[in-house]
Amino acid sequence: MACNVAEEVLVVGSVALDTVHTPYGECTDGLGGSATFFAAAASFFAPVRVVGVVGEDFPMDQLRFLRARSVDLTGLQIARGRTFRWIGHYGTDPNARRTLDTQLNVFADFRPVLPEAYRDTAYVFLANIDPALQLEVLHQMRSPNVVACDTMNFWIEGAPGVVMDVLRSVQIVILNDAEVRQLADDPHLIRAARKVLDMGPEVVVVKKGEHGAFMVSSDRFFTVPAFPTESVVDPTGAGDTFAGGFMGYLARTGSLEEGMLRRAMVYGSAVASFAVEQFSVERLKTLTYSEIVERCRMFRKMTAFEEEEG
Amino acid sequence: MACNVAEEVLVVGSVALDTVHTPYGECTDGLGGSATFFAAAASFFAPVRVVGVVGEDFPMDQLRFLRARSVDLTGLQIARGRTFRWIGHYGTDPNARRTLDTQLNVFADFRPVLPEAYRDTAYVFLANIDPALQLEVLHQMRSPNVVACDTMNFWIEGAPGVVMDVLRSVQIVILNDAEVRQLADDPHLIRAARKVLDMGPEVVVVKKGEHGAFMVSSDRFFTVPAFPTESVVDPTGAGDTFAGGFMGYLARTGSLEEGMLRRAMVYGSAVASFAVEQFSVERLKTLTYSEIVERCRMFRKMTAFEEEEG
Repeated sequence: MACNVAEEVLVVGSVALDTVHTPYGECTDGLGGSATFFAAAASFFAPVRVVGVVGEDFPMDQLRFLRARSVDLTGLQIARGRTFRWIGHYGTDPNARRTLDTQLNVFADFRPVLPEAYRDTAYVFLANIDPALQLEVLHQMRSPNVVACDTMNFWIEGAPGVVMDVLRSVQIVILNDAEVRQLADDPHLIRAARKVLDMGPEVVVVKKGEHGAFMVSSDRFFTVPAFPTESVVDPTGAGDTFAGGFMGYLARTGSLEEGMLRRAMVYGSAVASFAVEQFSVERLKTLTYSEIVERCRMFRKMTAFEEEEG
Repeated sequence: MACNVAEEVLVVGSVALDTVHTPYGECTDGLGGSATFFAAAASFFAPVRVVGVVGEDFPMDQLRFLRARSVDLTGLQIARGRTFRWIGHYGTDPNARRTLDTQLNVFADFRPVLPEAYRDTAYVFLANIDPALQLEVLHQMRSPNVVACDTMNFWIEGAPGVVMDVLRSVQIVILNDAEVRQLADDPHLIRAARKVLDMGPEVVVVKKGEHGAFMVSSDRFFTVPAFPTESVVDPTGAGDTFAGGFMGYLARTGSLEEGMLRRAMVYGSAVASFAVEQFSVERLKTLTYSEIVERCRMFRKMTAFEEEEG
């Protein structure tokens, strides 16, 4: 018998209300934000702690499903003003997304403050926020085992030096393909990912939307496809859901061994493939752990081949 | 002991002289064309027969390496006039290619005529030519075991009905992502591939360049990544090289069983990953079978993961 208690996972990021228009319909003020999707996904694997901010208008009852899964929300500040809102549009091509409006509201003045109990968390995910704030979070941590981070074009352009400081402070970077190309200033994605590896982290995970994701470390390469779902209703949050499944799985196993990292990639992809089936976090509310395991089995079926003998 | 004699593979397509500009340099009047890349790749696995046309200016000695690998060129016509020429440019992004000039020359009046000995070939690949000519080829065949075809946007737009006739006459379609989306009139690639499946073929293979390839059949899905090479010198011909490796492998095994189709996808990807390392067919000239097998092993290493127990 092998026993293992999952480590805790801390996420610092946005909690938002998203209004999304797609060819399948629209969703107004749906629960969104990087920390929300991450927490919902990670909670299948490990206890999760959230640091973020919402406004006084935020419908707190929408977070009940997270509390029911033991997500600790004591680090979620309620600030005077309105909640961060994003309005976006997807056409028939789910990969092409247009931002119609971004209202930062209380998120503009967000300063992450970690409750005392959070400071010992073993696994940390710094979602896409100002890299200066990402560093502030790290300064409040005692000695995390594993820190992973995300970032975006806005910070890569506006604060490249601070982004570099963050990259030197983390073990894992989880970015999308465009961000990796921009960060490395190289259109060749594999080469770009290796350049990001040279910036500090031990592992670089590159998310490619419908093309799946890959992971590079000093001497290893691993790739996982996206699940070939035909029903992409709302791709919003897929990347953060992937990160949540990935980090949650790592926290559950307590290992950064290659085999575990690979499984974490598959679990992250599996959870993300469910998230896009419905608007907002709706599908993540009804999702079960056995559905995730079954989908991981399907990932194996669609990638496995036998080498020829002899 | 299991013995198996490879079946023959017939390819009908272009033989061209390509002038290619890339950030790594340029290559003038290099050997190119779909039939050339296909034949070079397939010849590692099975005997190959070529039907195509070149002009009087064609440097026939450039085909010596194919003859040395038992590629039968008796179906290669030499017509009055100049050989088909293509001039293209790749920027720092190997996926973005620009055609600077296309001179069809003798290829404009090409009518495929199969030498009598070719008419019994078991495996046929109809490379990207006028779909009316693809049908003419099939009418000259006696009873091929497996027919695969390619096509392109020009024919999908200009002769959709004839393309449909071709799709109803083949078992396997090998297209790139843009062609599949266009043919199905659906931006969602997986759904589009399934729609192409409904047009007649039993297997649809979708090539996605740096994102690899996937294959759908009635109830199966298989995906293979591109090899994460950092040295893409010249992507020209990668798709036809893939098709050559794929069909060549199938011809060698004589089976369309799922496991064989999967290996064929991996072999095709492996050979294509070598082809792009040098201009024109240069890398395919020096490539060895054991290099291909070793690369297939690497494909397995970069996609394999263990499912969790219990």
